Amino acid sequence: MKSIFTRIIEREIPAYIVYEDEKVIAFLDISQATKGHTLVVPKEAYPNLFEMPEELASHVMNVSIKLAKAIKKAFNPLGLNLLNNNGEIAGQSVFHFHMHLIPRYENNDIHIRFTNHMDELNQEEYKKRAEQITSALS
Amino acid sequence: MKSIFTRIIEREIPAYIVYEDEKVIAFLDISQATKGHTLVVPKEAYPNLFEMPEELASHVMNVSIKLAKAIKKAFNPLGLNLLNNNGEIAGQSVFHFHMHLIPRYENNDIHIRFTNHMDELNQEEYKKRAEQITSALS
Repeated sequence: MKSIFTRIIEREIPAYIVYEDEKVIAFLDISQATKGHTLVVPKEAYPNLFEMPEELASHVMNVSIKLAKAIKKAFNPLGLNLLNNNGEIAGQSVFHFHMHLIPRYENNDIHIRFTNHMDELNQEEYKKRAEQITSALS
Repeated sequence: MKSIFTRIIEREIPAYIVYEDEKVIAFLDISQATKGHTLVVPKEAYPNLFEMPEELASHVMNVSIKLAKAIKKAFNPLGLNLLNNNGEIAGQSVFHFHMHLIPRYENNDIHIRFTNHMDELNQEEYKKRAEQITSALS
């Protein structure tokens, strides 16, 4: 089944498109978590980061930088988050890879909160985790 | 003044390094918000996304994909967030560009919450926002 993003790309449903080239499209996130909240979406529908070809992901990043600069120029936010959610547990709701650009202003009702677990971990545990990643890389 | 990341890159302070090449380094985030939480950091110290050369940002993205796949293989998380914070208001605490890779599991004490503002906005407002971004792009 086509994702809602594919339907936007194919002009079956409307969206506020801010950028388009051969490989990606960018449009306003309909939720506008903040003013200027934009999605950068590859036209080919990969479900998530794990499936994305590196070259296409690089292009998404290039377009994201251009748009981040444009959003800064347009709305003068105090900051900006780049966010890409993979998996329902990570907040992904459309299973067609997309990068969020979320400009940040004073008093946004946005919450990104992590807990520091440093006090619970010993050096051995850090070392083990790092080694597991390094082994999986090769 | 050198950032804490530059001091890690120059081996002045230790870190659990999982990947390194000519242009970027990746190591465990000491906070380990979740198991395997990793940072991808360009060796050259750009303060944020707005200042980053596109080519270097692309490389950060390529390395992030490789590492995301390795983290998946190593720890089998249910999902993963890519997150890049720009500006203190956006949660940036080290002013040397970095990309967070945050694997997600059941019961993580992580909160990323946005509000949907669709009901507060009319079509004119969406159109205006999109036009402001498009104008700023050119």
